[in-house]
Amino acid sequence: MENQNISFEQALELLEQKKYAGLRSLLSDAEPADIAEFFEMIDRNQYAVVFRILPKEPAAEVFVELDSDLQQILIDSFSDTELSEVLQELYMDDTVDLIEEMPANVVKRILANYKGEERKTLNELLKYPDDSAGSIMTTEFVRFKQNMTVEDAFQYIRQVAIDKETIYTCYVTDVNSHLIGSVTVLTLLLSAKDALIGDIMEDNAICVTTQDDKEFVASQISKYDALALPVVDAEHRLVGIVTVDDAMDVLQDEAEEDFAKMNAMLPTEKPYLKTAPFELWKSRIPWLLLLMVSATFTGMIISSFEEALATQVLLTAFIPMLMDTGGNSGGQASVTIIRALSLGEVEFADVLRIIWKEARVALMCGCTLGLLCFGKLFVIDKWLMGKDITPIVALVVCLTLCVTVLCAKIIGCTLPLLAKRVGFDPAVMASPFITTIVDAVSLIVYFQLAKYFLHL
Amino acid sequence: MENQNISFEQALELLEQKKYAGLRSLLSDAEPADIAEFFEMIDRNQYAVVFRILPKEPAAEVFVELDSDLQQILIDSFSDTELSEVLQELYMDDTVDLIEEMPANVVKRILANYKGEERKTLNELLKYPDDSAGSIMTTEFVRFKQNMTVEDAFQYIRQVAIDKETIYTCYVTDVNSHLIGSVTVLTLLLSAKDALIGDIMEDNAICVTTQDDKEFVASQISKYDALALPVVDAEHRLVGIVTVDDAMDVLQDEAEEDFAKMNAMLPTEKPYLKTAPFELWKSRIPWLLLLMVSATFTGMIISSFEEALATQVLLTAFIPMLMDTGGNSGGQASVTIIRALSLGEVEFADVLRIIWKEARVALMCGCTLGLLCFGKLFVIDKWLMGKDITPIVALVVCLTLCVTVLCAKIIGCTLPLLAKRVGFDPAVMASPFITTIVDAVSLIVYFQLAKYFLHL
Repeated sequence: MENQNISFEQALELLEQKKYAGLRSLLSDAEPADIAEFFEMIDRNQYAVVFRILPKEPAAEVFVELDSDLQQILIDSFSDTELSEVLQELYMDDTVDLIEEMPANVVKRILANYKGEERKTLNELLKYPDDSAGSIMTTEFVRFKQNMTVEDAFQYIRQVAIDKETIYTCYVTDVNSHLIGSVTVLTLLLSAKDALIGDIMEDNAICVTTQDDKEFVASQISKYDALALPVVDAEHRLVGIVTVDDAMDVLQDEAEEDFAKMNAMLPTEKPYLKTAPFELWKSRIPWLLLLMVSATFTGMIISSFEEALATQVLLTAFIPMLMDTGGNSGGQASVTIIRALSLGEVEFADVLRIIWKEARVALMCGCTLGLLCFGKLFVIDKWLMGKDITPIVALVVCLTLCVTVLCAKIIGCTLPLLAKRVGFDPAVMASPFITTIVDAVSLIVYFQLAKYFLHL
Repeated sequence: MENQNISFEQALELLEQKKYAGLRSLLSDAEPADIAEFFEMIDRNQYAVVFRILPKEPAAEVFVELDSDLQQILIDSFSDTELSEVLQELYMDDTVDLIEEMPANVVKRILANYKGEERKTLNELLKYPDDSAGSIMTTEFVRFKQNMTVEDAFQYIRQVAIDKETIYTCYVTDVNSHLIGSVTVLTLLLSAKDALIGDIMEDNAICVTTQDDKEFVASQISKYDALALPVVDAEHRLVGIVTVDDAMDVLQDEAEEDFAKMNAMLPTEKPYLKTAPFELWKSRIPWLLLLMVSATFTGMIISSFEEALATQVLLTAFIPMLMDTGGNSGGQASVTIIRALSLGEVEFADVLRIIWKEARVALMCGCTLGLLCFGKLFVIDKWLMGKDITPIVALVVCLTLCVTVLCAKIIGCTLPLLAKRVGFDPAVMASPFITTIVDAVSLIVYFQLAKYFLHL
């Protein structure tokens, strides 16, 4: 499903034939996001050439959309004048993102372009913690005073619009820069020309603080269907806004991070096909190692039961089924709770309610599985396949199944809550980690029940 | 982190004391999303009372934010007049959502409120497939003609704004309703009053079709940082728009669905604490059963090797470690590919590149794990714990580890691609499913290597 209003084939052909005027006119109709995609298709020694034929303003928008590797190659090819032209067109939040991605020498060149007030703002923004609202907000918003009229407001918007990230929601501050309200362009359009901003503004504007977690900010924007939310400092002074497009990016990045963490990987930022095998190895090996080492405990449990197993080798055949079912049950519970935590649906205080709910679900799941397994053991394994399964062995297997599912679900729902409580990311408490613990638990239960019922 | 500008405690107190005037004024300052949260806290026999004290317009916005259970209770308590008042305030996309969630008798009452042109539009919208752009678009957008001036346009916006879901991007159509361009309110504000829409509009507007997948539409909105995208039919006639807030909801819902599917659960829509244990059971038991049954194949592999295992019970102790490491390695690869597919970074045609990349990652991971495991077997298991591990047993275990990781990663990356190819959802090819297959593979490899090297 291709949607861009630019033909990449045609653009590549024009580039190959060095028909730069044609390429320029083709690209001038394209969306910045599509031109950025075009950059991914061309050789690195062509980046500078193509970038130079873009008109100045879209060029900066394209620059923001590029991968940081590509941005660095371009900056290295820029003269100081070219660099300063691009930087002038960037919004502050994009500049901050750029600086955070670049190596020290590039950062130095970038910072040399900011003086006085601008440099101060930039330094302030760079100080906010990585995950905070402060780190993703932009300082380019429209600010009104209460005593402006609607006509003044429109005139002001016309003057400053070009430098602002959004004009559709504007903010009203008092003399000390405290946020006192907001007003949308829609309200302005529907109000009389001489109406006062102070009279038509929405007071009690929903806002976030610079220290709020960026995921929280994004979820607030989604909750209130807002196009932007104002960000205030500790003294309730308006210092920036976060726009809906950045909120979307935050939510998508966080989801990708969670998918990685929940599956025993360290998050990587690059698209898959552009990630080198060595980088994939780096993101995957730490958890594999850790989980391999912890899985040896399970081996120790089996070892300690070696002699008994030698007399009843039949029991070994059920180990994978018991371990997998336990792991899957625990994984279901843990992922459910991890997501509920991240959506703010549950918190640590709900721990007893959650355990009680999971216990009931576990009993239902455990009994269903246990009964069906019992039936299967007799119908398929004993009658059809002629295996030597006594009722008492079947009982041990099915009872283990019930108890394992119960333990798995309770461990699965408790660990993410505990992780959150002590300040860890609950996402690492997903299936792979839970599986390792539940494996050990299920084997202990299995062997204890076997010992008891089979008198081993 | 509480952000709403309403005190729930105070509202609950006012409700308890039946101070409805006070409650009304408190709620009239609140955001619809927060009032919807307040509904979750009160008894079901109070829903109608509280709803009736809300002013009419925010009442409809609150209604849209409520859970479908709650919406149904409210509708059942509404008189026909009350129902029609609420419905009048709803946007078409919200009406469609509502109708899709309600039982037949409620749908009949709702549809009775739509006549003529409106009923026709509604019927059209209801016909679009569940996952399509048509099913989430709204028909309330601002439409201009090319020969309107900017002044005409503003006048028109002022007339119709109140009924439109967004006015910030307006669309230009020709006499046959074909989409020919778009114009933002920002452009209108920056243009001369007598400029013609046809001259200032952006032609080549990015658009989607009614049949496009809604996740694709959402990702386009995110890619182009758009506030809305126009939706056209097969004849390129403009029939609706999808707004950024709905796109955000789509992306979040799809992520939640993927989290569930990737962890062997059927997606549920309700918040965790409001989902009954029986519903959780229903969403979890199908996969648990399926995976339990498939895990018995692994048991059969062990059974077929029972006699040899009886002579070398030591080998049993490594089964959990080999199975878990295989499962984790496969899970990493499958989730990476599932996400890359869903973000559009890879497609089936890349299958060879992907397998080649995963094979290299697997070799690196496998060798690292194998070597460390070999060392551990000798240092910890043999010397420290005095186990009877011969170099040849250690070799079998470590070689199995390497081969298992290789198989796991290749199976893990191939299955989601195949699923996508044949039209299944790749998300179900995540860890739990891969684990079951990889378990069997790792055991076969293990026992074959053991047979060969240990002459069992």
